[in-house]
Amino acid sequence: MTQRLSAERRREALAALPGWQEVAGRDAIAKTFTFADFNAAFGFMARVALVAEKLDHHPEWSNVYRTVAVTLATHDAGGVTERDVALATAMERIAAGSGG
Amino acid sequence: MTQRLSAERRREALAALPGWQEVAGRDAIAKTFTFADFNAAFGFMARVALVAEKLDHHPEWSNVYRTVAVTLATHDAGGVTERDVALATAMERIAAGSGG
Repeated sequence: MTQRLSAERRREALAALPGWQEVAGRDAIAKTFTFADFNAAFGFMARVALVAEKLDHHPEWSNVYRTVAVTLATHDAGGVTERDVALATAMERIAAGSGG
Repeated sequence: MTQRLSAERRREALAALPGWQEVAGRDAIAKTFTFADFNAAFGFMARVALVAEKLDHHPEWSNVYRTVAVTLATHDAGGVTERDVALATAMERIAAGSGG
């Protein structure tokens, strides 16, 4: 879970994560989610926060009104690992139920 | 509440808001809060989110593990207003009770 992904595995993972992209100049993946309003955006963040705490793996994220910009990387590994794929996958599931 | 603060009123307001600073190149105020851990940081964000929604005035903020960086400005006024001072004051009160 804490090894950096191979190029092949990363391509495969990103293909299954719509809207997620590589971050220029850094081994990380990112997506900006847009919701109906602040209520929906923060509701998404609250649900993700519980998952992140349970996984003991936390996003870098910012919120401006109804948008939430997320960057995921695994600090200990210096790049993207299966832990980031797991958190991104959970975010997709939660966003689908958050009026996103 | 939605008029930009005078220079005098802004100085007065910032003097009462420890750690808050002007943002270079923009009419806004900002502070980075540091908490004990992600639980405390997100607990702070959750409490602030409820206040922000009630005030109908929302922060620009980012969270990386136990830090929360906040920028406040009033979009409609193109700068800092009493609404920002009110939200910053609420954040100070909440942070004091969030293990910050």
